[in-house]
Amino acid sequence: MGRTLTYPKRDANTVNRYKHRATYDLGAIHSIINSSQVLHVSFSPGPSDPFPAMLPMIGQMGSFDYPSAGFDEPLDCYLHGYVSSRIMNLARKSEGDGLPLCIAASRVDGLILSLTPNSHSYNYRSAILHGYARLVTDEAEKLWAMKLITNSVLADRWDHTRVPPDNAEMSSTVILKVRIVDGSGKIRDGGVSDERKDKSNDDVTKRVWTGVVPVYETFGDPVPSPENKVSEVPEYITSFIANMNKRNRDYAETAVNVTLPAEEQH
Amino acid sequence: MGRTLTYPKRDANTVNRYKHRATYDLGAIHSIINSSQVLHVSFSPGPSDPFPAMLPMIGQMGSFDYPSAGFDEPLDCYLHGYVSSRIMNLARKSEGDGLPLCIAASRVDGLILSLTPNSHSYNYRSAILHGYARLVTDEAEKLWAMKLITNSVLADRWDHTRVPPDNAEMSSTVILKVRIVDGSGKIRDGGVSDERKDKSNDDVTKRVWTGVVPVYETFGDPVPSPENKVSEVPEYITSFIANMNKRNRDYAETAVNVTLPAEEQH
Repeated sequence: MGRTLTYPKRDANTVNRYKHRATYDLGAIHSIINSSQVLHVSFSPGPSDPFPAMLPMIGQMGSFDYPSAGFDEPLDCYLHGYVSSRIMNLARKSEGDGLPLCIAASRVDGLILSLTPNSHSYNYRSAILHGYARLVTDEAEKLWAMKLITNSVLADRWDHTRVPPDNAEMSSTVILKVRIVDGSGKIRDGGVSDERKDKSNDDVTKRVWTGVVPVYETFGDPVPSPENKVSEVPEYITSFIANMNKRNRDYAETAVNVTLPAEEQH
Repeated sequence: MGRTLTYPKRDANTVNRYKHRATYDLGAIHSIINSSQVLHVSFSPGPSDPFPAMLPMIGQMGSFDYPSAGFDEPLDCYLHGYVSSRIMNLARKSEGDGLPLCIAASRVDGLILSLTPNSHSYNYRSAILHGYARLVTDEAEKLWAMKLITNSVLADRWDHTRVPPDNAEMSSTVILKVRIVDGSGKIRDGGVSDERKDKSNDDVTKRVWTGVVPVYETFGDPVPSPENKVSEVPEYITSFIANMNKRNRDYAETAVNVTLPAEEQH
């Protein structure tokens, strides 16, 4: 009761720099992933290529077995892609646990403008996950994941479109299910942090403006397509836009005023 | 004269899905990288770990030998990090060409809301680069790259702070220089694209609102730090914010009206 679930700390996911900013809490990490519009997914393309491969993908965490699970509970990561893409072919052919992936999401919440370039920073939230990917073959789970992912782009959109997908649509879409092995997050909020040597130097403080510029994503006014036949923009769209704009802006502006931890109060 | 430089197409960077959206032009790719506030950098942590590693990093492309080089010319990617971080240790120990990296940046410019989940999309810009990383050891080049990266966070910030960095600051900061081997970009702009079977179905078109929601990053009003002693927000900061907000919003709103290529005009 009240226990916070955390990912195990392995070498691969342990944060060594600015440790006080690190989090291993499932809730914090899953919330960063699920509020990101794009995930970067990295995998090894095979022994003949020295470089890791990376793809921007749309994905979302959830539990098919326990659909009501909260962000702070164990979840799988579902990624959406095209049937013949390289990552899907590699996952299809992978043996053992599945295709090893690294999934990352980051967003900037503010520019931290301090006295020296060295103490400049961002307010930001970032998360990484490691896990093994397999193709979802169960049709009910696949449909559930497609709905989950569509509704992550715009809340409640699925039921307001032509569904279910037909056979051609189902077979051209592939969903990867990533069983998560570990993860970590890093969150920086607060204001400017400078060293005593600069703060006590009047020549510097008189000349250099210090502060934070909040940064947030904005959703603009919906532009109907030339073929659209619904006269008014539906309420679920306008309220989604209003909610997201308020949430994003509030987060960035509130983050400025968070008290910095002792480690950074020079 | 007038020739467009392009990256070579290798297996690792060739786009196979929606090929008409792909670009190999140095100018387009470098411009996506350099306008991104965060890059995701992937590398192999070594044979004992099955998962690629990934880090959010700040970086910028430029040419130390030809500082006036444009985006469409051959450039190196400079990445900023901490002296004892894992990626820096791996790069320091790497033999041969350097540490193989994949660098990615993506941004969403709009939500494409069409009749079916299957034809939903984003307007977006994404780029990946492959290359070999080495630590910058030349002090002049390192200082040049630090200035380049600081000014990418906020134009002209470097000269308005306490510079140059002192010895401790120089030695705690490491700059990676990535020699680029190949790269590719993918750009989606335009409006909604639906299949004839749905466009001709009145039951669907009467019920489903279709259109685009522009998405863009906004920089808010600067919040001075409690210790700031410069009474007015300097002009180089206010004009940066105004320019970026106009650029981001204009791009997202203009992208909506780009004519879709024939491949997508169902």
